[in-house]
Amino acid sequence: MTSITLPLLDDLHVHLREGDMLSNVIQETINGGVGRVMAMPNLKNPLTTADKVQEYQNYIKSLNLDLEILYSLYLGQDTTPEEIVKAAKLGVKNVKMYPAGVTTNSNFGVSDITSFYLVFEAMQENDFIFNIHGEVPSDYGRNICVMNAEAKFLPILAEIQKNFPKLKIVLEHMTSAEAVEYVKNCDSEYLAASITVHHLDLVVDDWAGKIHNFCKPVAKFPVDRQALRDIVKSGNPKFFLGSDSAPHMRELKETACGCAGVYTAPYLAPYLADVLERIGCLDRLVDFATVFGAQFYGLEPQKKTFILTKKPTVVDSEIHGVVPFRAEETLSWGIE
Amino acid sequence: MTSITLPLLDDLHVHLREGDMLSNVIQETINGGVGRVMAMPNLKNPLTTADKVQEYQNYIKSLNLDLEILYSLYLGQDTTPEEIVKAAKLGVKNVKMYPAGVTTNSNFGVSDITSFYLVFEAMQENDFIFNIHGEVPSDYGRNICVMNAEAKFLPILAEIQKNFPKLKIVLEHMTSAEAVEYVKNCDSEYLAASITVHHLDLVVDDWAGKIHNFCKPVAKFPVDRQALRDIVKSGNPKFFLGSDSAPHMRELKETACGCAGVYTAPYLAPYLADVLERIGCLDRLVDFATVFGAQFYGLEPQKKTFILTKKPTVVDSEIHGVVPFRAEETLSWGIE
Repeated sequence: MTSITLPLLDDLHVHLREGDMLSNVIQETINGGVGRVMAMPNLKNPLTTADKVQEYQNYIKSLNLDLEILYSLYLGQDTTPEEIVKAAKLGVKNVKMYPAGVTTNSNFGVSDITSFYLVFEAMQENDFIFNIHGEVPSDYGRNICVMNAEAKFLPILAEIQKNFPKLKIVLEHMTSAEAVEYVKNCDSEYLAASITVHHLDLVVDDWAGKIHNFCKPVAKFPVDRQALRDIVKSGNPKFFLGSDSAPHMRELKETACGCAGVYTAPYLAPYLADVLERIGCLDRLVDFATVFGAQFYGLEPQKKTFILTKKPTVVDSEIHGVVPFRAEETLSWGIE
Repeated sequence: MTSITLPLLDDLHVHLREGDMLSNVIQETINGGVGRVMAMPNLKNPLTTADKVQEYQNYIKSLNLDLEILYSLYLGQDTTPEEIVKAAKLGVKNVKMYPAGVTTNSNFGVSDITSFYLVFEAMQENDFIFNIHGEVPSDYGRNICVMNAEAKFLPILAEIQKNFPKLKIVLEHMTSAEAVEYVKNCDSEYLAASITVHHLDLVVDDWAGKIHNFCKPVAKFPVDRQALRDIVKSGNPKFFLGSDSAPHMRELKETACGCAGVYTAPYLAPYLADVLERIGCLDRLVDFATVFGAQFYGLEPQKKTFILTKKPTVVDSEIHGVVPFRAEETLSWGIE
């Protein structure tokens, strides 16, 4: 039986949630082969200030679970330059931007970028990393909809880069060939991008009527998926894992207006091994999921390891009320 | 209070279904202001032969409901030239083609067009109308998915037209700017197209996570919706109403793999008045929904009338277990 020993994964974009769900999700993230995550701040009451981040952090610490967590501020009206400095002192070095209204709990997000330029200045000075959900809101008069909202965001990204050339930026959960090209061709060492596991597998057909594959940004055309696969296969260090694992209870998915999000945490390493092997680049797993991200974020390499084994692994139909990605399907890899 | 008296609508594409659902759906279709329909033959056991059509027809007749119904054969392996002649003798003059696997109960559909050329010949000779679900199956290697499957079908349509120039064809439930352009620019009087009410209102965003707006062909980009609106507004007689009203029980929609179809029958005339008024062409309602279709199909004009009144009309949240289009929303028109 083939086995691979590899460092615990870095997942630089996860939704750990809050309340009843939180400790289960952290444990399931650990079960998926992950050692370190960046936790998203889009809680029901978003983490827009250093105090709110610290409260969330303290609560999670009290759970005593063995997962290293990076925290992030949620860019909003409360996020002043002073908050950036205050957060930095607490060891928080990430800010997340959601354009207003484009995904779960993004109603408090950003609509006018320029109003945050003083904040960006403080972020640049304090070596923050700026994690961006790169979509513009739909605007039918300009033919903007969920299928091209990411490509239409790229000029805004260019504008931010022009004004803050030394601000480290991660364009998160990329889904389009246009975004891949943009990041690949950008000559700044301050720009990188994350890719989810599920976007390596899904196209628009897969979420048409299939709510558990529905997430934002939506999976797009086959050529877009191919661009994501090709860039991972190429071993370009600007591109690394950020799963955007996002649990929603089954009843909030299988309803008239289902929530956006795919839950990949509990099997993250097996999903990744399964798809990378299928597309012919299992050898990229370690760099993509444990090296490139840590390098960009300036993190120490993971020391703890785990073992992935080539064995049929059936994904649970439901885990604590949440239907995981590829539920009931058989993956070709599992964790010892 | 503004009222309009108009002929009962012709809806040249509806799913009346079978079993328990059938009589409710027929009654609700009548309630929606419709006097005449073409009933789709994609039952669980598709109506591939004249005998099957006759059996369905006889059963519906026994229900004694006041709706004029045109029937259609489902093009499949059983549909021989002899069946066409036999159907013609029974007064059935429609054949429906579903490319294999693209929508509800289309598993018995067509994958190789040329194998049906003798059937098409018989259809042309016997003055049949050929109603086409114009999509090709997805093929990721060629970048074909639900978002462009209709545009990719147009070369096949052109091939059929070239070989059977006097076969009357309706490209049904058009959703793309490409298809609108194709039909508009085609100089054959033997080609027409139908448009649903819901595709005048929906874009891809509207079915992202919202299963009751999910149908095949899927609603597409804002520019596609605009092309549909513009062609209706233009009063081009090649384009007429075919609602593709398709009821599915709520539990078959709000589930992991939801059925494709939008149920518009119970409020068809109010939906249509509401959207046409919003886009500034309420004056096109009569031609689009009662004149152009009848002309193309060679049907007598409807004599019975009904009254549409401008009054706030709240759409039911559920009708016999089915969630209708725009449930709980308020339309600006209702039926007296």
